[in-house]
Amino acid sequence: MIIATERSKRPQDYHGEQRPAAKELFCPFCEGHENKTPPEVLAIRRNGSGPDSPGWSLRVVPNKFPALRHDGDLDMQADGLFESMSGVGHHEVIIESPDHSASLAELSESQVEKTIWAYRERILALRQDERVQYILIFKNHGVAAGASLEHTHSQLVALPIVPIRVQREIDLSRGYFGLRERCVFCDVLEKERSAGQRIVAESDRFVVLSPYAARFPFETWILPKAHVSQFELTPPEEHAELAAVLKKLLAAFNLCLTEPAYNFLLHTAPVADRCEQAFHWHFEVIPRLTRVAGFEWGSGFYINPTTPEMAAESLRVAIETGKERPAEAE
Amino acid sequence: MIIATERSKRPQDYHGEQRPAAKELFCPFCEGHENKTPPEVLAIRRNGSGPDSPGWSLRVVPNKFPALRHDGDLDMQADGLFESMSGVGHHEVIIESPDHSASLAELSESQVEKTIWAYRERILALRQDERVQYILIFKNHGVAAGASLEHTHSQLVALPIVPIRVQREIDLSRGYFGLRERCVFCDVLEKERSAGQRIVAESDRFVVLSPYAARFPFETWILPKAHVSQFELTPPEEHAELAAVLKKLLAAFNLCLTEPAYNFLLHTAPVADRCEQAFHWHFEVIPRLTRVAGFEWGSGFYINPTTPEMAAESLRVAIETGKERPAEAE
Repeated sequence: MIIATERSKRPQDYHGEQRPAAKELFCPFCEGHENKTPPEVLAIRRNGSGPDSPGWSLRVVPNKFPALRHDGDLDMQADGLFESMSGVGHHEVIIESPDHSASLAELSESQVEKTIWAYRERILALRQDERVQYILIFKNHGVAAGASLEHTHSQLVALPIVPIRVQREIDLSRGYFGLRERCVFCDVLEKERSAGQRIVAESDRFVVLSPYAARFPFETWILPKAHVSQFELTPPEEHAELAAVLKKLLAAFNLCLTEPAYNFLLHTAPVADRCEQAFHWHFEVIPRLTRVAGFEWGSGFYINPTTPEMAAESLRVAIETGKERPAEAE
Repeated sequence: MIIATERSKRPQDYHGEQRPAAKELFCPFCEGHENKTPPEVLAIRRNGSGPDSPGWSLRVVPNKFPALRHDGDLDMQADGLFESMSGVGHHEVIIESPDHSASLAELSESQVEKTIWAYRERILALRQDERVQYILIFKNHGVAAGASLEHTHSQLVALPIVPIRVQREIDLSRGYFGLRERCVFCDVLEKERSAGQRIVAESDRFVVLSPYAARFPFETWILPKAHVSQFELTPPEEHAELAAVLKKLLAAFNLCLTEPAYNFLLHTAPVADRCEQAFHWHFEVIPRLTRVAGFEWGSGFYINPTTPEMAAESLRVAIETGKERPAEAE
């Protein structure tokens, strides 16, 4: 748990989560407002425009309200039962486009490709910081998915420890590898591609699928066919193809599900422990259609009212025809 | 993950989670509508009124749309990489009052006591089913917390396996006990009561506190002072006192936080593995003030913008004065 005092809230600051985000009168991510963010750490610019000025097609900036500080050393404290560590790390925002109103699904493939390129560039830069053990990349799209600003953006958090959930996934993958000497994700890919019923789309190098034990309706994974544990080892030449399948998937969500809020997460091996044989990087994309409530919270089980086969079929039809699956076919 | 086909949803059934629950025109939990639920399995009735008729002050009924079936045997299936088990178990609803509009915080202490009594009665009854390994009791209050009906109710799910999250908490408690030969919850209670700053309220037998590493703002636990691993071993003579502290806490939430949605969860030892020395039952109560988004999902870390000390102080003031903490005292 992270106590983020820079985001400190007193009781009267909570108004319940029902209230939708107000349409922003002023957006700090729009072109021309570059001085409203901390100075950029990466940008794609045309015509030699200078840093923190207009003329960009993508910008990466430190988060103005970071969950973690980027200066200072690791500072472990133990007080009997309780342990704490200072929240050192990096928290950055990838502004995916200067266009305020377009969502990632609506950007051009080449613009989505730039976003993927930026993820890799920032990972390569931040892994040089020796305090960084893990780099988490995610996107919250829509109020229901936790987005606080409407303007399309992703986030990167570089952490001084490997998060517990990541470690657990790696431990499970290692356990499988220990038994079979094969990567569990490679085995899943092989099995799913031969069965076909949970496959959403396939390109030369990537597979989009509804996982067998999908926890959420329309939960979808994107995996490279080649075994690679760290995302940054997938070369930029493959980014255009990855951008195309990601854009296709997000567009299919919009067709099947009336523009749902969603989260996506990059699952990749840690900076130091590369876990080369056992892990396989992938994106997990989750539309926010059901609420996590007491049952899920208490058990860690998820009740999914839509089978992954049904979700995959709907998404396949949407991708192939550019249309929602006709209701009479049910 | 549970695929619940009795709750099956096609893509067009999702309308996004933003839409608030429609005010029900007809409530199946109201007095006089007893034939709209499956037959009751427990009720508190006056004047010898018959089952499934008016005249009750509390009813327990099977969930009409259960996450699990209660007939059938355990049926494990393995298909290469993938394993599945049929969803056998019980899913019940505790209707806490015939009053449609009162929340649990607004019910009388004696009515809250009846609810706690019903939890224990149903645990004692369902643990007789030899397929049942764990009984999970929880409450979703408010749309943001996942409640689908407004009429105040809790839920009980009896499961054929010990859920992963419960097992993990028990493993951690056992690990601590193995090192120190003491219950970790007893040690936390002792430490917190001597420090005082995270204590919200205390009665003869119960302590209400904001945990040291609170994941959510205003996350609060209720623990018995006496070491008891299973909730059902706490005798009915103590229910009135537990009801009083629970009602106090929920009323304080309403004062501090303008009637927040919340979840509560009973953490108790499994049916067979009683974990008598290492575990200590408790309630976890979580107002839904922040959204779980990509960062939390990816890392298992939670960003909490309110310190537990600040939350405890606000709740203490609300309980002591019956008023919100004055803003000028900040």
